[in-house]
Amino acid sequence: MNLGKVAGMVVSTRKEASMEGLRLMLVKYIDEDGQETGGQVVAADSVGAGPEEVVLVASGSSARQTTSTDKRPCDAVIMAIVDSWDIDGNVKYKK
Amino acid sequence: MNLGKVAGMVVSTRKEASMEGLRLMLVKYIDEDGQETGGQVVAADSVGAGPEEVVLVASGSSARQTTSTDKRPCDAVIMAIVDSWDIDGNVKYKK
Amino acid sequence: MNLGKVAGMVVSTRKEASMEGLRLMLVKYIDEDGQETGGQVVAADSVGAGPEEVVLVASGSSARQTTSTDKRPCDAVIMAIVDSWDIDGNVKYKK
Amino acid sequence: MNLGKVAGMVVSTRKEASMEGLRLMLVKYIDEDGQETGGQVVAADSVGAGPEEVVLVASGSSARQTTSTDKRPCDAVIMAIVDSWDIDGNVKYKK
Amino acid sequence: MNLGKVAGMVVSTRKEASMEGLRLMLVKYIDEDGQETGGQVVAADSVGAGPEEVVLVASGSSARQTTSTDKRPCDAVIMAIVDSWDIDGNVKYKK
Repeated sequence: MNLGKVAGMVVSTRKEASMEGLRLMLVKYIDEDGQETGGQVVAADSVGAGPEEVVLVASGSSARQTTSTDKRPCDAVIMAIVDSWDIDGNVKYKK
Repeated sequence: MNLGKVAGMVVSTRKEASMEGLRLMLVKYIDEDGQETGGQVVAADSVGAGPEEVVLVASGSSARQTTSTDKRPCDAVIMAIVDSWDIDGNVKYKK
Repeated sequence: MNLGKVAGMVVSTRKEASMEGLRLMLVKYIDEDGQETGGQVVAADSVGAGPEEVVLVASGSSARQTTSTDKRPCDAVIMAIVDSWDIDGNVKYKK
Repeated sequence: MNLGKVAGMVVSTRKEASMEGLRLMLVKYIDEDGQETGGQVVAADSVGAGPEEVVLVASGSSARQTTSTDKRPCDAVIMAIVDSWDIDGNVKYKK
Repeated sequence: MNLGKVAGMVVSTRKEASMEGLRLMLVKYIDEDGQETGGQVVAADSVGAGPEEVVLVASGSSARQTTSTDKRPCDAVIMAIVDSWDIDGNVKYKK
């Protein structure tokens, strides 16, 4: 999984029928220091993530291992909201 | 999924038989500001995307989760046409 | 899929038994202008591609969705020979 | 698989139900000289890896081939703790 | 598949039980000129590759399409030892 921060939402009315009802969030990837890496992804939201929230994104076929994304053309999913992480015993991020 | 802009179409007559009938679009990837990232992909079109349209591309095995790409040697599919997206509450793109 | 140009052939006698009989081509990736990107891949050939030919390569599990690569440890396949492509209505490449 | 060093742990209470009980470790990728590459990943731990430990991370669908990650939206798993490796016959790392 | 050169071996005693008995090789990726690209991977060996040997590595789910790696948390496998390759008709590498 990769750390990311929810930056916004993507709206699409014309899409694969199976994608109906999925919230598509624009997520900017961040590194272990919480800095943006320059990369971004549009991920389906399976946990109710809101703007600015720090999340984990699973990619590839693993993104389809949730009830809401199963068998859909979806290659990225927000599957966790991050409370905190530490590096070498020091808290680096706390919600 | 990744944001992209349809740049053109790729024509191929000699190909895997299962790819017959699929429209193959050349898509340039764009970032959250709508700027081209320098990357590109050739994706099957499952939603009727036209030139210059901003789309979402799903990659890997997820690209085969549509009726038109199922069980085909296809690793990228346009599965949505983007209406708009926002960043930090500001509309960044609107069709 | 990614655009590439067939640069040569790779010969291997000691390999996974299931790979027997597959032609393995060295493909240099090219971008939408036909310029080499610096990347390359060794892909199984399922369409009879010859030297210098411009092709499409499918990667990952999608590379196994052909009769010749099914259930084999093969992560890249040439599944189409490109006739032409256009960008913004202008032909960029024609065979 | 990729070499990495366990840097810390990620805590998340709001997540996909199937991820319950998995320890999520922040792993910094290292190269064959043991130097950090600048990349990082959050991986489920299936072997009881501790802080600072050098590990192997499997990614993609392969990350779901363990009892603890099967059918979960998990795209990276620590599946081995590294004892040592050599390059050209010289031990480069020893636990 | 990607070209690589076997650089060494990785030893791990504490690992996923299903990985028992697999030889894990440290492989440095090389390009079409035989030059190291700077990337490396730890791959299971299914063909008996030795030190310094030039090999092909299959990645992702394709790495599990061998008897020795089936259903294991293994995302890279050496599935061929390279005898030779040519570029534009000139032999670039010969064992």
